[in-house]
Amino acid sequence: MELLQKRILQDGRVLPSGVVQVDSFLNHMVDPQLLFAMGKDIAEKYKNRRITKVLTIEASGIAIASFVAIALGVPFIFAKKQKSNNLDGAHHTASVYSFTKETEYEIRVAKKLLEPTDSVLIVDDFLAMGSALSGLCTLVKSAGATVTGCAIAIEKAWLKGGETVRETGIPVYSLAKILEIRDGIPLFAEN
Amino acid sequence: MELLQKRILQDGRVLPSGVVQVDSFLNHMVDPQLLFAMGKDIAEKYKNRRITKVLTIEASGIAIASFVAIALGVPFIFAKKQKSNNLDGAHHTASVYSFTKETEYEIRVAKKLLEPTDSVLIVDDFLAMGSALSGLCTLVKSAGATVTGCAIAIEKAWLKGGETVRETGIPVYSLAKILEIRDGIPLFAEN
Repeated sequence: MELLQKRILQDGRVLPSGVVQVDSFLNHMVDPQLLFAMGKDIAEKYKNRRITKVLTIEASGIAIASFVAIALGVPFIFAKKQKSNNLDGAHHTASVYSFTKETEYEIRVAKKLLEPTDSVLIVDDFLAMGSALSGLCTLVKSAGATVTGCAIAIEKAWLKGGETVRETGIPVYSLAKILEIRDGIPLFAEN
Repeated sequence: MELLQKRILQDGRVLPSGVVQVDSFLNHMVDPQLLFAMGKDIAEKYKNRRITKVLTIEASGIAIASFVAIALGVPFIFAKKQKSNNLDGAHHTASVYSFTKETEYEIRVAKKLLEPTDSVLIVDDFLAMGSALSGLCTLVKSAGATVTGCAIAIEKAWLKGGETVRETGIPVYSLAKILEIRDGIPLFAEN
């Protein structure tokens, strides 16, 4: 998606660690017009796939999921990362390892929210090693529901997380697929 | 706001602990049409106040902030709850006590995102004791910016958090202001 790729080049910053910092428009401050356009683009891609629910993970997937869900006209769920006193009843859970935060955590979705008849579109801001995406796929399968596809804002393709998911037959659509960082500049795959 | 109040009565659940559970449409699964309407309603209330940025706190404020921000045509920021390796540079910080999770945590916003000229609308899903709201006000003041107002989905008025903020002269607009829970049923203030 040209709009997002241009914005990454204009306002993003690549840290020496390889982190692509997009905190002025995507995952700390958020430009709602950009995300509205991203949501429309993703919805267009999946409009004929009979999506019944969008699923993401707190926190930075929530804004994108909001705009995908409104464009598709379906509810979205955000998987929670911690146990909370407000969550009663049974949950589907999965384990996710965060390479950024160097810690493993549990994600959970209340069982009542996912049904076997659901056709789920998983949405997230970043796809790197694919640990969060795999965890979300596990949650959907635990519910007996179907992962119909995934949509990602920024994929770091060289970390192979997307490849792993695609090999299982699940389509993964990335708005900005970065093939490599060369001299501090992201090089995007052609859409 | 009648639409939200009706939805709380229809799909919400009051736990014996007094927790108002709205996880099927507001803070775990989210109904984007409802939130779109809520965003429009809040934007209408503050449209003449020259808001430049919406501020919320991760995670469950993000969906509401998304729809308020798109309706107002301004960016939104979500304060982060944990230290993260992706956050470099200087931050404004404040301490927040969560009565639900019985723990104190730090919230932070990158200094570069808030400027003294900013007129900020603070948005959140719940207002109870007001600890999160006070923390967000502190962050805005640290930046030398102005808290022009607050907008809340559900206020538990008997816990007095809203009263405390209103006494400082900051307007707090709540879409569903619950005066008390009587026999397990929320009683709303008239709008």
